[in-house]
Amino acid sequence: MEKNLYEKIANTIEQQVREGIYLPDTKIPSVRKTSKQFDVSVATVLQAYRLLEDRGIIKARPQKGYFVHSLPKRSQSLPTQTTMTGAPHTSKVTSIMTLLNQVLHASQKSDVTQFAAAIPKGLYLPIRQLQRSVGRLMRLEPEICATYAFTPGSEVLRRQIAIRMLDAGCQTAMEDITVTLGCQNALLLALQATTQRGDKVIIESPAYHGVLQAIDVLGLQAIEIPCHRETGIDLSSFEQELQKTKVSACIVTPNNQNPTGATMPPGARKRLLALAQRYDLVVIEDDVYGELGYAEQREHALKADDKDQQVIYCSSFSKSIAPGFRVGWLVGGAWQDKIEALAHAQSLASPTLTQTAIANFLENGAYDRHLRKTRQAYQENLARCVALIQQYFPEQTKCSQPQGGFLLWVELPESIDALAIYQHAAQQNIVIMPGQAFGLHDRYHNYLRINYALPWDNSTDNAIRVLGELCQANLHLTS
Amino acid sequence: MEKNLYEKIANTIEQQVREGIYLPDTKIPSVRKTSKQFDVSVATVLQAYRLLEDRGIIKARPQKGYFVHSLPKRSQSLPTQTTMTGAPHTSKVTSIMTLLNQVLHASQKSDVTQFAAAIPKGLYLPIRQLQRSVGRLMRLEPEICATYAFTPGSEVLRRQIAIRMLDAGCQTAMEDITVTLGCQNALLLALQATTQRGDKVIIESPAYHGVLQAIDVLGLQAIEIPCHRETGIDLSSFEQELQKTKVSACIVTPNNQNPTGATMPPGARKRLLALAQRYDLVVIEDDVYGELGYAEQREHALKADDKDQQVIYCSSFSKSIAPGFRVGWLVGGAWQDKIEALAHAQSLASPTLTQTAIANFLENGAYDRHLRKTRQAYQENLARCVALIQQYFPEQTKCSQPQGGFLLWVELPESIDALAIYQHAAQQNIVIMPGQAFGLHDRYHNYLRINYALPWDNSTDNAIRVLGELCQANLHLTS
Repeated sequence: MEKNLYEKIANTIEQQVREGIYLPDTKIPSVRKTSKQFDVSVATVLQAYRLLEDRGIIKARPQKGYFVHSLPKRSQSLPTQTTMTGAPHTSKVTSIMTLLNQVLHASQKSDVTQFAAAIPKGLYLPIRQLQRSVGRLMRLEPEICATYAFTPGSEVLRRQIAIRMLDAGCQTAMEDITVTLGCQNALLLALQATTQRGDKVIIESPAYHGVLQAIDVLGLQAIEIPCHRETGIDLSSFEQELQKTKVSACIVTPNNQNPTGATMPPGARKRLLALAQRYDLVVIEDDVYGELGYAEQREHALKADDKDQQVIYCSSFSKSIAPGFRVGWLVGGAWQDKIEALAHAQSLASPTLTQTAIANFLENGAYDRHLRKTRQAYQENLARCVALIQQYFPEQTKCSQPQGGFLLWVELPESIDALAIYQHAAQQNIVIMPGQAFGLHDRYHNYLRINYALPWDNSTDNAIRVLGELCQANLHLTS
Repeated sequence: MEKNLYEKIANTIEQQVREGIYLPDTKIPSVRKTSKQFDVSVATVLQAYRLLEDRGIIKARPQKGYFVHSLPKRSQSLPTQTTMTGAPHTSKVTSIMTLLNQVLHASQKSDVTQFAAAIPKGLYLPIRQLQRSVGRLMRLEPEICATYAFTPGSEVLRRQIAIRMLDAGCQTAMEDITVTLGCQNALLLALQATTQRGDKVIIESPAYHGVLQAIDVLGLQAIEIPCHRETGIDLSSFEQELQKTKVSACIVTPNNQNPTGATMPPGARKRLLALAQRYDLVVIEDDVYGELGYAEQREHALKADDKDQQVIYCSSFSKSIAPGFRVGWLVGGAWQDKIEALAHAQSLASPTLTQTAIANFLENGAYDRHLRKTRQAYQENLARCVALIQQYFPEQTKCSQPQGGFLLWVELPESIDALAIYQHAAQQNIVIMPGQAFGLHDRYHNYLRINYALPWDNSTDNAIRVLGELCQANLHLTS
């Protein structure tokens, strides 16, 4: 009986090691702790540990305890997936998500040239000020760990956001603002508040992939309307769509659209608002790149001209201050109460520390200077990147002309498959975002998006050259 | 024409001041900045500022710029609320939410005795270690500001959670865990993944109010089943309900239920799982107080006996490490993929800094010692609190007997209205949570919940005495 018991314990611990709960070279619980956990004698645990030593699973270190030996990890056997209730999971979105997960995962590695994710490298972020701000908060206001910044969020942050909104042309009171977990969260909450499962939503094509995801999990139907590289969403197609079908909402990016870089001209904005008014359409504005326009004067938000409260404004500080802090916001207008109820039910609050650190940075007044510096750096990177693409990529390659942000949309010759370029490039530690991630139909198989918010040096030059050569090679392969 | 222009600018700035965008005694933008913003001459702005000085809105301070004068705030005129699409908003939940917002807001003030919100004061949290951990991270790994801990979340955190789950009796691999924004977020995601609008969900009565909120925003129907003070949810009523109606999911709190403190005995857990199996019911387990049981050995989770993958486990570190960090998790079993897709669409990731700081604290091994200390302190507070209630409250008052956590559920004589007690107490800077917040029907009008995770001294004693006297006074008023 006693023999069975120590074997059982040994088997349990072995399984834990194999499942990665205890990693190689880390300590496993002491004999005393394990004896308590399994409610057995110390002697039994010692027997179990000796058995594990015999099996080569653990090793005693004198005076230190028992440590896990290096061990090949067994592949995880997961429970069978039951059929999912909820949204009809279109296989297209699922495959985009699988691709996206791969790309984002690859882009997080430290030794790659990260052209893929729309995340600026640390040198373009006010890291030193954030270090100071977080350090001071934890030192002087340690109760911040215990305090909730309940939805709609920190007052000092919302006051600072209201001031920023003036530059976007919006007279927004602190009370009109809800803090969110980045812009993605703002977009999701806006959709959730204004649509119901099965509703139709107009989106740009190509679109930011987070929009495709949000629409998918909410069980909505996306209608893709072409987005021109210079002027943004095509309002003639937009209107035709409204004439023939009931649409609940649209998601547009009037400033520096991702991935095309398009900015809608004033006339188009007016026409869009008039259409929204006529067809009783909620306009969800994604302005996450709005503060990164290259012109001296910031482009106004669409929300600035929103006389009829048709627009829900969404943005965040993820592109300009701290992506990892997940601090965004929305101005919900007529939907504000409903959005606040959703946000409260979602997580009660978002973390107090990150909200307050960003508020402090905004308060100290260095943000505008920081923006000017980074916008200039992005313009320089853009010029260098485009020049290199013209030099090394196939002749028919076309680049977008972003007037802000840090994303370049590159059209390759029709015969090239961007997914193949992604795969070949990843083998050489260069990660790009293939066009396939930006739409539900395979329209963008010969496109790729390049993030140029990274330190630009000879190795970056070289990475663009390598991409160009891969494209050339693939061109010859298929033509 | 020029006259109109400067008046217009003055009016705009006055409005901003009245809306609270610029607070009393803070600086408004410089003349130069305003001239750029409105694209007018410096002279025009100076005229506008002089007009504002005349109106008493701003005041020049030599060498410093223009500052807002103290000014009574105009009540905010919000846009008319349009009809909300989505869930039929039961007025009951709305009124609970309004009440809750009031109470939570009142409980955040610095000068109150905070018996209301289920948030431990800083002395019961490992603040010093968190200060060190956050400080070290920001100093040595500043790129943490720029790095996403994409869903399912930080690996080092998930590994530490997997180790904690062993104490709860669960063999959980890192891959089975999704990091969430606190337990509330875990509960919402679990419901979202397993139900559809209109579905019926069994909940405990009294219930944690976040559950009522989540069910409301998802458009689900709550079925309230009584929760006994000692043994938890009443399984006979539970089974009767299942026999007569199709229920999709239930949310239960097997360990130290909020607010009753109940812990389900082993037999009840087995019966619950058998019922779930027989009626094809998803069991969402809220174990947020699981680690705060007073017994030497931690009570297992229901999930520990979940052979058929019916249970989704939800918990967080908000009750024991850092409420304001919003770090929770779930183990989704068969629904894991769907839940991860929902969490990714929700916000891509939760903040990296807070996740990593908690992981580091767990790694350094001081968590168990911290838990032992706080659990002991809570038991002492509980004893003192109950003794005082027996001394000062009306004779028929009954207290729950929590075996863990830091919440006491107090039943007052039938004739007392807890809302009135709340209002009177708040005037004396004592905040409690009235029973009305814990159910959809007015069953708990004569109950209140007391958070005893606060420093307990003479003034706390005194606050309980004041509450007792208020109850006595209200008793005589109504009888």
